[in-house]
Amino acid sequence: MKIYSTMGSFCKKQFKLFILLVCLCPTINVIQAQIPLPKVQQLAWQEAELGVLISYDLHVFDGKRYDQPFNRINPIEDYNIFDPKQLDTDQWIRSVKAGGFTFAVLTVTHETGFALYQSDVNPYSLKAVKWKDGKGDILRDFVNSCEKYGIKPAIYIGIRWNSYMGIHDFVTQGNTQFSKNRQTYYNRYCERMTTELLTRYGKFFFIWFDGGAHGPEQGGPDILPIVEKYQPQAVFYHNLQRADVRWGGSESGTVPYPCWGTFDYPSWFQYSGAKDNFKPIKYGSENGQYYMPAMADAPLRGYKGRHEWFWEPGDEPYIYPVEKLVDMYYGSVGRNATLILGLTPDPEGLIPQQDADTLQAFGKAIRDRFSNPIAESKGEGKEILMALPKSKTFDQVVIAEEIEKGQRIREFSLQVYKKRNWQTIITGTSVGHKYIARLPEPVSGEKVRLIISKSIGQPYISKCALY
Amino acid sequence: MKIYSTMGSFCKKQFKLFILLVCLCPTINVIQAQIPLPKVQQLAWQEAELGVLISYDLHVFDGKRYDQPFNRINPIEDYNIFDPKQLDTDQWIRSVKAGGFTFAVLTVTHETGFALYQSDVNPYSLKAVKWKDGKGDILRDFVNSCEKYGIKPAIYIGIRWNSYMGIHDFVTQGNTQFSKNRQTYYNRYCERMTTELLTRYGKFFFIWFDGGAHGPEQGGPDILPIVEKYQPQAVFYHNLQRADVRWGGSESGTVPYPCWGTFDYPSWFQYSGAKDNFKPIKYGSENGQYYMPAMADAPLRGYKGRHEWFWEPGDEPYIYPVEKLVDMYYGSVGRNATLILGLTPDPEGLIPQQDADTLQAFGKAIRDRFSNPIAESKGEGKEILMALPKSKTFDQVVIAEEIEKGQRIREFSLQVYKKRNWQTIITGTSVGHKYIARLPEPVSGEKVRLIISKSIGQPYISKCALY
Repeated sequence: MKIYSTMGSFCKKQFKLFILLVCLCPTINVIQAQIPLPKVQQLAWQEAELGVLISYDLHVFDGKRYDQPFNRINPIEDYNIFDPKQLDTDQWIRSVKAGGFTFAVLTVTHETGFALYQSDVNPYSLKAVKWKDGKGDILRDFVNSCEKYGIKPAIYIGIRWNSYMGIHDFVTQGNTQFSKNRQTYYNRYCERMTTELLTRYGKFFFIWFDGGAHGPEQGGPDILPIVEKYQPQAVFYHNLQRADVRWGGSESGTVPYPCWGTFDYPSWFQYSGAKDNFKPIKYGSENGQYYMPAMADAPLRGYKGRHEWFWEPGDEPYIYPVEKLVDMYYGSVGRNATLILGLTPDPEGLIPQQDADTLQAFGKAIRDRFSNPIAESKGEGKEILMALPKSKTFDQVVIAEEIEKGQRIREFSLQVYKKRNWQTIITGTSVGHKYIARLPEPVSGEKVRLIISKSIGQPYISKCALY
Repeated sequence: MKIYSTMGSFCKKQFKLFILLVCLCPTINVIQAQIPLPKVQQLAWQEAELGVLISYDLHVFDGKRYDQPFNRINPIEDYNIFDPKQLDTDQWIRSVKAGGFTFAVLTVTHETGFALYQSDVNPYSLKAVKWKDGKGDILRDFVNSCEKYGIKPAIYIGIRWNSYMGIHDFVTQGNTQFSKNRQTYYNRYCERMTTELLTRYGKFFFIWFDGGAHGPEQGGPDILPIVEKYQPQAVFYHNLQRADVRWGGSESGTVPYPCWGTFDYPSWFQYSGAKDNFKPIKYGSENGQYYMPAMADAPLRGYKGRHEWFWEPGDEPYIYPVEKLVDMYYGSVGRNATLILGLTPDPEGLIPQQDADTLQAFGKAIRDRFSNPIAESKGEGKEILMALPKSKTFDQVVIAEEIEKGQRIREFSLQVYKKRNWQTIITGTSVGHKYIARLPEPVSGEKVRLIISKSIGQPYISKCALY
């Protein structure tokens, strides 16, 4: 396999003209300075590509279908239903690893308010239950398993809903002085819980506040300074001031194309376009001034009309088949988003076998598809040229930008040279961290070129590969 | 010392006439049948005479003055302030025993909602704290110490206020569906907490629901059936259907005279006469159809303008002096009520030395006063006659009815025979379990007689003693 760089073929005249323009024209400098650049953690987020959300809460054990609006306002009577006799976070994380996922998020608190760790702030936690004589710490086990298998640990903290404490959409019930005091109490409780979570379990890759962490300006807890103090390296998601990543606007595991890695506001929550089917966050903003790549999320048990983040009896037929997960991969990672797939241990405390098998098959399918490029190159500039080995075909194209320099490409095409003729087989707009095209049929030819017909500043291609 | 019974002097003619009337006249039978009789536990309550309430809660540890209205609506931020390093319930109960008290009540939950035991229903309990690694159970220790020292264990359960759960005067905050669901949840939580308390720690002498346990008819938990199922022997205090004893209408440790052991309603809460300075419950009802003796309660730290059930810094000057506690004894036990004195361990977990010393001195003072009667008798009928030893004086009189037959005396006098003359030294109305008179000066004479000038049915005197 030969790999040609386009650098040598870069036109020297064009290059000189470019340098001249850079020197003479302040406007171009300004344009380049305005290219939003990712923070270190945003880069890592995009490079991570695939993560899982492991959702686990009391109602997994109630034997009933989860009904979110109902469960949000109906505390579970007996928290001692929580009794996962075979709980094994190693088994969870082995499944995650086998699926090719690089990070794992644990719902350390979800909407019941029940906490899967040893809290000194929230008594409604693993200290309260008979399970493991009140000494269990699933977050600790989870982090240890992640370290063991080289998976980045991350946490999901729910403070917006808390059926135990009577919190609905961040707020206490009622308008009495007592209600106001309890709001203050609850806000401190969230802050103190966040502090213990972020200081006792090492570094988290990603810190996900379910439905946000609205701050004091909305009457909520002051969460962001705690995250910035104790885990400055983490991807923070999100409050109204800051969101390192944005929701991709659906729980389908996919984003539409183009899905720009930039947005017009430093956070997305107020500008999600909920009334417009979340169009702004689905597509992002081509010229947005804030770097904010998308997250595409979906539960593994979300096929054929079900959509369950939590284990419930009889949901096995609704596990996505591998080919649907592969489609999801193209529709998320292949469109510059990070995919988070929802897993849920069963009441025994294990990722169910069928779920685990599916993850393994998915991991294999992705590895099989992207392990052996027939040609691959990288480079700087408007064109990348690659020779194609004879008697080889390709039906997939992966293009990636060096996004530490920002998402620069605005328009591109991929052309194949065959029978003395350049034929365009792909045209596109957004590339970003990764663009993957599936071609309708295998293509062969003598050479291939990637043409960047429009970009902000110089484009940097970290990868152009054909499979 | 000679003791004369009046039984021998009972007029045979009168007795025959009485039997005749009983046989011939249904009206008299009806009157006798209507004398309200105490239940076994009410008898025990009155015989117990002296108890303590041991109040202990999170705010003992906050170093601040307790402000009940404030504390009821301001949850304590950090429950790990609860850290009584030297806690020793044996020391508590030894102090109780030394004071001559026969039962002890522990505030297993008070108004914070924090529970002093290992609850599987209320996570805001000793399972939550670092103290004793979350394994402490003060109720268990307390019951064990009570058994060790022969003190009857009793519990005080607070469900009316719960600053942690947002409960104020039995109810949740707000009027949303969520609030209503939380009310249902909280009611079940109270029922389930009561069930575990009443099934795990053996028999309680007395079960005190702070501010009542309003039932389903008021939107509250259904507590009474739980008490009746698991602890039918206990004194139940109280809900709107049943109160085995009634509050004496003040927290002065005294009741006024007369303080009848009967009341017009099966519970007192709705008929306490709050607007009339609690007159109905202070006095009771001479002809009340329900047996319901009074409780006189006061905190030991209630002297000179302070009134503190809970330990607070600097309250030592407000410990009642022994002579004031002795006055309290006359004003409660001496008036047919049971006295409950409030004790509170300090943040180290001990009854403070000055409090313990005061209890011991009080116990000695009462024993000294009532250990050696100069004359004592008992009997049935309208008169009890006792000879007095020569050269002895008395300045205290104790009279007691056999209250298992009901409180029957309505008017009595005590007369002393001296210099060929009967002189009335005491007149009174209510006797009940115990009546104690202090005379302004020592009295001597040849003999003494107790005359029951008015009673419902035959009076039964279990004790008439002079000291």
